[in-house]
Amino acid sequence: METIRWQNGVIIAIDQTKLPHRLTRLRLKSPKEVADAIREMKIRGAPLLGAAAALALAQAAYRSKAKNKKQLLQDLEEAAELIKSTRPTAVNLFHGVKVILDYARGLDGEDLSEVVRSIIDRCLRLLDEDAEVNMRLSKIGAALLSEKETVLTHCNAGAFATVQHGTALGVIIQAHREGKRVEVIATETRPLLQGARLTAYELSSEGVPVRIIPDSAAGLVMQRGMVGKVILGADRILATGHVINKVGTYMLAVLARENRVPFFVVAPTSTIDPASRVDEVIIEERPPEEILEFSGKRIAPKGVGAFNPAFDITPPKFVSAIVTEKGVSYPPFDELRVWVKA
Amino acid sequence: METIRWQNGVIIAIDQTKLPHRLTRLRLKSPKEVADAIREMKIRGAPLLGAAAALALAQAAYRSKAKNKKQLLQDLEEAAELIKSTRPTAVNLFHGVKVILDYARGLDGEDLSEVVRSIIDRCLRLLDEDAEVNMRLSKIGAALLSEKETVLTHCNAGAFATVQHGTALGVIIQAHREGKRVEVIATETRPLLQGARLTAYELSSEGVPVRIIPDSAAGLVMQRGMVGKVILGADRILATGHVINKVGTYMLAVLARENRVPFFVVAPTSTIDPASRVDEVIIEERPPEEILEFSGKRIAPKGVGAFNPAFDITPPKFVSAIVTEKGVSYPPFDELRVWVKA
Repeated sequence: METIRWQNGVIIAIDQTKLPHRLTRLRLKSPKEVADAIREMKIRGAPLLGAAAALALAQAAYRSKAKNKKQLLQDLEEAAELIKSTRPTAVNLFHGVKVILDYARGLDGEDLSEVVRSIIDRCLRLLDEDAEVNMRLSKIGAALLSEKETVLTHCNAGAFATVQHGTALGVIIQAHREGKRVEVIATETRPLLQGARLTAYELSSEGVPVRIIPDSAAGLVMQRGMVGKVILGADRILATGHVINKVGTYMLAVLARENRVPFFVVAPTSTIDPASRVDEVIIEERPPEEILEFSGKRIAPKGVGAFNPAFDITPPKFVSAIVTEKGVSYPPFDELRVWVKA
Repeated sequence: METIRWQNGVIIAIDQTKLPHRLTRLRLKSPKEVADAIREMKIRGAPLLGAAAALALAQAAYRSKAKNKKQLLQDLEEAAELIKSTRPTAVNLFHGVKVILDYARGLDGEDLSEVVRSIIDRCLRLLDEDAEVNMRLSKIGAALLSEKETVLTHCNAGAFATVQHGTALGVIIQAHREGKRVEVIATETRPLLQGARLTAYELSSEGVPVRIIPDSAAGLVMQRGMVGKVILGADRILATGHVINKVGTYMLAVLARENRVPFFVVAPTSTIDPASRVDEVIIEERPPEEILEFSGKRIAPKGVGAFNPAFDITPPKFVSAIVTEKGVSYPPFDELRVWVKA
């Protein structure tokens, strides 16, 4: 099952805000509709944002009324700006835009229909690569799990966060398929409850035992020795090994170190941002209503505000290992630079 | 405004599950109704549980059809067992029961109506003491705050958790009244959202600026230097300085130490349990539905379970100071034993 796909110029994507109760698919007919779906988190998850961004550019090419290649590139660049304005933190989104834009700029030939076809093909290859990459890193990560293991994970780094297979959940499900007895403690992941809604859904569908905890109980379960490893995804990994991921990741990392629990980050190399310094990373702040309301029902008293950062930054000293499709990197994470250059 | 009071044999208490939208009062006519309200967390907060427990025993005496003092004591003991069975962790509940039971047992005289009157009076004095004690510890704690300070607090240790004034919020509100510029970051406190519902309500009613964060953002705000002190209440404090409080407290304590943020616990000495060892403390597990549902609406997929511990245990090495009505105790917390013995 693919989370997102291309169908004759329409982008078909699972509406993740409706899960786990309804598995409905969006039919997005323009880059504008893709951008709106990303902003509203109907499409979310760093690798999936990369795929959606690439698809939106392919769609811009497909829909373009350009008379020449220069005009076509202008249409692509316009779509690129729109997509890049949606969410600032996950680097995969920018990566997806860049791959397609660079490819289109480098294309020879002036037969526009061929150029468009070629851009769409590049985009579809990118989606296939996502699936392959996740399968590869899942196998690499699964080898690190013990025969019997309880893993704590945060947010959703599963198939729903990617085109297929997932990253952190890919590792867990792969280990399960290999016959390892893996159990999962999933943080519910406030405010949007990706853990309770998406991670619990994916794992229970695969037959992996899963229990949900409030984010605030993560300390207690580690303190009691109930967790063998913390395994989660990333929205951006810097060359220094800083991990930017769903808010709460830093908290889990500090608790894991305090309780001597290994802390593993699983992500494709497209998540690595070799260029930015840690102080250049923009942490998205989401609308306060995500915290102050639930299903449109107000929780907090009127007049009270909220601070709703979507991500946090985990310094490398808390990270035990970073697993990508190219292998496992341990502190001081020299491979991160090598992998991205290669 | 009192959170709980006695009115001719009826116990009048704010229904805390209806806040902040409706300020409604329960009229509890029997110890059984008090026990149910405690179990359903309509009445919650460690010091308030102590008051409610005492009131339930006074009510048992008031309603008793006993013909002699022995029978009256049996009725009290029956009510005591019922109340003690409601929730296992907050020691104040057991303290409230014990104070009234010991007092009743020690009473001379066989005029039953006088004995009952005397038990009720003792109970009402206990409620007055709660208010006085909180006012005293609020002043002691307020002196520890800077002229300009952002405090992070967790759950609700305010007036709603006590008969009057509150403990941790008592300190904050007292400092505000003294003219200090205190701002508060309140964790929403999943699953029952006491932070978003109760703490935000109390502080904004008092004019103290307050912002709500998801529990998982506590690490980020400390890492960014947005928090001057963590100040929260306790459900039980052991002679060793171990603090048992709302789940998430341990997590905040570890994050506070990592980020060099002072971590203050504020509670009356009735919260100190000098007898129990840490491995004897029962951490209540609440129904999974508190996590799996919201307002009766299912969040998680069917068949998925949850682990819902109500409290956690913070080792003394993470605690900067414990503030009570008798003063401030710093590590290694020798005063805890002295205060309770005195």
